[in-house]
Amino acid sequence: MTELTKGERTKKKLVDATAVLLRRQGYHATGLSAIVDESGAPRGSLYFYFPGGKDELAVAALEQAGVEWRARIDAAVGDAKDLGGTIDAVITVLADDLAASNWENGCPVAAVALESTSPAVHEAVQRHYAKWQEDIAARIATFGLAKPAATQLATVALAAVEGALLLAKVQRSKQPLHAVGAALRAMVTR
Amino acid sequence: MTELTKGERTKKKLVDATAVLLRRQGYHATGLSAIVDESGAPRGSLYFYFPGGKDELAVAALEQAGVEWRARIDAAVGDAKDLGGTIDAVITVLADDLAASNWENGCPVAAVALESTSPAVHEAVQRHYAKWQEDIAARIATFGLAKPAATQLATVALAAVEGALLLAKVQRSKQPLHAVGAALRAMVTR
Repeated sequence: MTELTKGERTKKKLVDATAVLLRRQGYHATGLSAIVDESGAPRGSLYFYFPGGKDELAVAALEQAGVEWRARIDAAVGDAKDLGGTIDAVITVLADDLAASNWENGCPVAAVALESTSPAVHEAVQRHYAKWQEDIAARIATFGLAKPAATQLATVALAAVEGALLLAKVQRSKQPLHAVGAALRAMVTR
Repeated sequence: MTELTKGERTKKKLVDATAVLLRRQGYHATGLSAIVDESGAPRGSLYFYFPGGKDELAVAALEQAGVEWRARIDAAVGDAKDLGGTIDAVITVLADDLAASNWENGCPVAAVALESTSPAVHEAVQRHYAKWQEDIAARIATFGLAKPAATQLATVALAAVEGALLLAKVQRSKQPLHAVGAALRAMVTR
């Protein structure tokens, strides 16, 4: 881990605070004062580091969430020997994370995706899901599926997992994630 | 259609306005003044008809959305002869509705589900999805599947469709819904 400069630490504090607030209460309800308060950063630093204000911070928070989750998923599936094992590993890490947050932290992007009306944020959300879909398709293809089948399956897997995260959060239960995991497993092993 | 009394019309205006605002901007950003303004109802009527304020209105709006969509889905699948046809009919009505709203109106409950922190609203969201899951399982069972398989498949179908609505909205494309429809069709016809 390289040491961050003071400026980088301040930027990270602001982005982390934005991510927490977006996940907890969504885009519309998150104001700049709340971001500064949550971050503990000096008030003047926000427009110094993020001249684009709330939209620039929201885009940075979404991108950071994508990078962090990519690392977590990669670590979780690293040892999986086949597609079924990969699915199980992803479902387990998502279910454990949601349960550990007392069913509060779902997908860090979904809530913003559904209610933000900012074009810049919408584009960041689009890039986020497009990248995930590509990553999933590429991972599936390494297990021998042809590209069109892998792309189709990636869309279905991403949709099913996003929906299962929503239902799991609502029901405060891992069951929807496990049901979707079993169905995806059956799709790839038949 | 029975005629509504003046009081019923005012209540409906307030509930309709709440539904529009919740769908457009979520729970946190929706204030009582905005609801009154959007509804065109007299300011004093809100607490007269909804002494529980925003939470009571939000619960009524979610329940109304459930009733309306149940009627639309029932009408769409009425003629379907098998499970595959039923899936196609549901996917078509959801995809057409989302496209017709210029990709703005997704699931009327999902946005609120992901960002509301009100216990009363959370319970309404839980009831909403539990009812949908039961309805889907009952519909599947009419085509001859055993109860446990039907319940499991209902969870997967609901999750996949919710996730596909999210991705379709983000991508401004029916493709995720059609991909999920084809996958669900393959699951039930193999």
